[in-house]
Amino acid sequence: MGDFTAMLSLPLLLSLAALCFYPSTISSMPPPRFSPKSKYAPRFLGKPSRSNYSAPTYQYDTRYFDQNLDHFSFSNLPKFRQRYLINTDHWAGPSRAAPILFYCGNEGDIEWFAANTGFVWEIAPRFRAMIVFPEHRYYGESMPYGSQEEAYRNTSTLAHLTAEQAIADFAVLITELKRNMSAQDCPVVLFGGSYGGMLASWMRLKYPHIAIGALAASAPILQFEDLVPPETFYQIVSDDFKSESFSCFNTIKNSWDVIEAEGQKKNGLSFLSETFRFCKKLKSTAALSDWLYSAYSYLAMADYPYPADFLMPMPGNPIKEILLLNETMGDSVLTFTWESVSPKLVCRRIDNCPDGTSILQQIFEGVSVYYNYTGTVDCFDLDDDPHGMDGWNWQACTEMVMPMATSKYSMFPEYSYNYTSYEEWCLGDYHVKPRPNWITTEFGGHGFKHALKTFGSNIIFSNGLLDPWSGGSVLEDISESIVAIFTKEGAHHLDLRPSTAEDPDWLVEQRATEIKIIRSWLDEYLERKRAVLDM
Amino acid sequence: MGDFTAMLSLPLLLSLAALCFYPSTISSMPPPRFSPKSKYAPRFLGKPSRSNYSAPTYQYDTRYFDQNLDHFSFSNLPKFRQRYLINTDHWAGPSRAAPILFYCGNEGDIEWFAANTGFVWEIAPRFRAMIVFPEHRYYGESMPYGSQEEAYRNTSTLAHLTAEQAIADFAVLITELKRNMSAQDCPVVLFGGSYGGMLASWMRLKYPHIAIGALAASAPILQFEDLVPPETFYQIVSDDFKSESFSCFNTIKNSWDVIEAEGQKKNGLSFLSETFRFCKKLKSTAALSDWLYSAYSYLAMADYPYPADFLMPMPGNPIKEILLLNETMGDSVLTFTWESVSPKLVCRRIDNCPDGTSILQQIFEGVSVYYNYTGTVDCFDLDDDPHGMDGWNWQACTEMVMPMATSKYSMFPEYSYNYTSYEEWCLGDYHVKPRPNWITTEFGGHGFKHALKTFGSNIIFSNGLLDPWSGGSVLEDISESIVAIFTKEGAHHLDLRPSTAEDPDWLVEQRATEIKIIRSWLDEYLERKRAVLDM
Repeated sequence: MGDFTAMLSLPLLLSLAALCFYPSTISSMPPPRFSPKSKYAPRFLGKPSRSNYSAPTYQYDTRYFDQNLDHFSFSNLPKFRQRYLINTDHWAGPSRAAPILFYCGNEGDIEWFAANTGFVWEIAPRFRAMIVFPEHRYYGESMPYGSQEEAYRNTSTLAHLTAEQAIADFAVLITELKRNMSAQDCPVVLFGGSYGGMLASWMRLKYPHIAIGALAASAPILQFEDLVPPETFYQIVSDDFKSESFSCFNTIKNSWDVIEAEGQKKNGLSFLSETFRFCKKLKSTAALSDWLYSAYSYLAMADYPYPADFLMPMPGNPIKEILLLNETMGDSVLTFTWESVSPKLVCRRIDNCPDGTSILQQIFEGVSVYYNYTGTVDCFDLDDDPHGMDGWNWQACTEMVMPMATSKYSMFPEYSYNYTSYEEWCLGDYHVKPRPNWITTEFGGHGFKHALKTFGSNIIFSNGLLDPWSGGSVLEDISESIVAIFTKEGAHHLDLRPSTAEDPDWLVEQRATEIKIIRSWLDEYLERKRAVLDM
Repeated sequence: MGDFTAMLSLPLLLSLAALCFYPSTISSMPPPRFSPKSKYAPRFLGKPSRSNYSAPTYQYDTRYFDQNLDHFSFSNLPKFRQRYLINTDHWAGPSRAAPILFYCGNEGDIEWFAANTGFVWEIAPRFRAMIVFPEHRYYGESMPYGSQEEAYRNTSTLAHLTAEQAIADFAVLITELKRNMSAQDCPVVLFGGSYGGMLASWMRLKYPHIAIGALAASAPILQFEDLVPPETFYQIVSDDFKSESFSCFNTIKNSWDVIEAEGQKKNGLSFLSETFRFCKKLKSTAALSDWLYSAYSYLAMADYPYPADFLMPMPGNPIKEILLLNETMGDSVLTFTWESVSPKLVCRRIDNCPDGTSILQQIFEGVSVYYNYTGTVDCFDLDDDPHGMDGWNWQACTEMVMPMATSKYSMFPEYSYNYTSYEEWCLGDYHVKPRPNWITTEFGGHGFKHALKTFGSNIIFSNGLLDPWSGGSVLEDISESIVAIFTKEGAHHLDLRPSTAEDPDWLVEQRATEIKIIRSWLDEYLERKRAVLDM
């Protein structure tokens, strides 16, 4: 283990630290702080498509499937190769109608999701199940037009990066896979976390003939239009900090004015750049604010209440602290501990500053937990290249329009959602006009819960209430079999992560409940199937 | 009434006669007789888009709505104007959460469907309902790219003529319409016949948050892949004739060899052309066979068991016989009697030929009931232009691949379904490759009934068993609220037609049952709504 740790370079470690939060995407951040493509707008994921950092923890075959680029029209477009990962080691096969556990790939490299979705790997043996991890189109290796460069070239090439097309990819893939394996009678259970959880629940609703149920973890399917107040996300972020420490909350709340005031001064931006140790001088205070919003949001998503002592930094050996090396080290795979950087830790740093420490210095000490946990970073690079084409930003500028605002009760400056500005950015940056009402039309919105009371079945919406995305998810049972499982604690789709010896009881129980429900879906399916055969 | 009748020209009457069967589309006819775009392959509709023959029976406003051409991608395509017909005369409005009856437009001019779907108009007052008839994209006036000529120019312009896009049009239209009328709480009930019925049931399954239920009349949603035997359609056609008269069935069954033998002879095609009174000489016996298949199929679809005496032809006044002039004559509207031409009548003609009449002459006498009911046609024009672009043929060559074959137990020559030939035609004629497995992937197929046992609600599949399309529809209850209502008799979505004084009891009862079920959906909806408000 030590050898492997020593092999890791410092920049790599920093990236690992940034990745380890399983962070998330909104992109629809309030102006003027964030444009939809702001690098630091909170996202479901930190940096998608970093396959070099996501070597698999688990064993699988990597395969490819030729997909139609457009399932819903017959334009003469080239097919593309969709990557998927498959494992049949424990599968009991068609004769036993053994299940297929199918993870709906999110906005990133599928190997990374496979490595970080231990729950599916851990339950497969007990269900004697096949495992399939299909990659989402336009991410990882599943690039239309042959390469990321071509796929992301312009509006026209990006046109088919939509959730509906991705779900249809999954539907076609699983249908063909089952046909090829004579597994037509094998029930499919869907899994997904965050955006992948949205896809899983939507796919269950749209393709009930293909999947018998879905576990949608931390899936904010109600984070659209006015279904929840646009202040919800940042209110939960703020509440997470406030519940740790009221003085910490206040320090952060007061910091924005200090930053603005400093920025107005002559040499103010230089001073701020030095205080926060940016490698290059800030061009505006907005860039610093973005950077801070991002840190606080990710920290809230990763608010995982292990005892804070469990992995407190030990100055002599920072690497060991931030990384939990997995037992399957032979595969060069890491499992990260994201619990080590939480609002609790940030607030402890902020609150423990000696009397007289400036508010800016306090903030810097706090967010260093997130940006510089290992203490090895000399300076921070904002990396705010405005020209990069980014898959999730495209999605945010087309379908995934999630209104975001901040209220005066939050620790952020008050800001109202402004769709007009949002649209202007998208038109300017992607030459595309968002369709802010489309997702609720396609997948349900205002009448959603009402409609599903007597329609649909077998969906688990799981959430941890500390996760700011939980506010846009489903937190109440809709019917007997469309249920909400939430824990008071718990971070962004923590239940999908590999189990560890340190898992708190409520997490162990949450996963056990999910397994029990999935078992009931499978039993019911087999019962119905037997009933048909007996007729 | 007499005046109006006298105004109608003879060619118009002939067209009316051809239209009055509410005929239907398969397009996937067995080679070598039919290519998918054979003019005489049986279709859901006879000749779509003949708005001049479909003056409205009912009062409505005609409006237009700008639709995205591609709902599922963000290509930079021009919007198109979708036409819809709307009537709010009886609507009790948003304060009463009064319902919206929404007819899913089929492959033709929407005015024609509005005029021929009396059921919806008749029940609107008792439900105090709004009525909306949206037109299907690429039909009638709802043409992308500004005109039919442009829309049907090539594969690229036709690309977005698909069922999923059409259903999404409906979803967007109704959502916007409700928003504009503050009618968000008003429940929507879907209606549709034939292909429109397929759309209605699929829309209820895909958009449960938009529509609370669907009456899908004569909707062959299982007429794909191997869900039903490909011989089903023509077997029912054959059985319809056999049940009328075994000798008639035999005459038709024996006629094919006679036609083929005649075609082999020198001057045989001329002889056949004269016998069947074609205006131009036949180029092959296949064209004649197509013409006959088409007649038998439409006749079976229109097998409406009113007493055959009810409207028997009376030589002196053929016009009165074939037309039932509607009471709202002031609107220049006609209601047709399609029951007057049925297998019964054809068989009576065939069987009543004097001894010694040749088999060809018998067949001619028989199909004249269909093609020349009024006795006013001097010669028949095959009108087999192979270059015409046709909307349904495009759909048949892309998604709507309905395998068709004939068995040796039918009255047709035995033929096995051959997908390869089918695909070749489509590639040749439309430069498009069909996706024969897509519909079942998107909307359900093999696991369909099983899947819907515990998923979905509020769909009526209505059928008349004499209708050859009934074989591909849902004929058994799937769950408590996804139900099959079928009558032993009854033609192609007869229940949607206007009621008449001559309706048999079973038809009156069928409609009453449908109304009762729709009433229960609305009651349940309002009850749930009240429960939410009371909380």
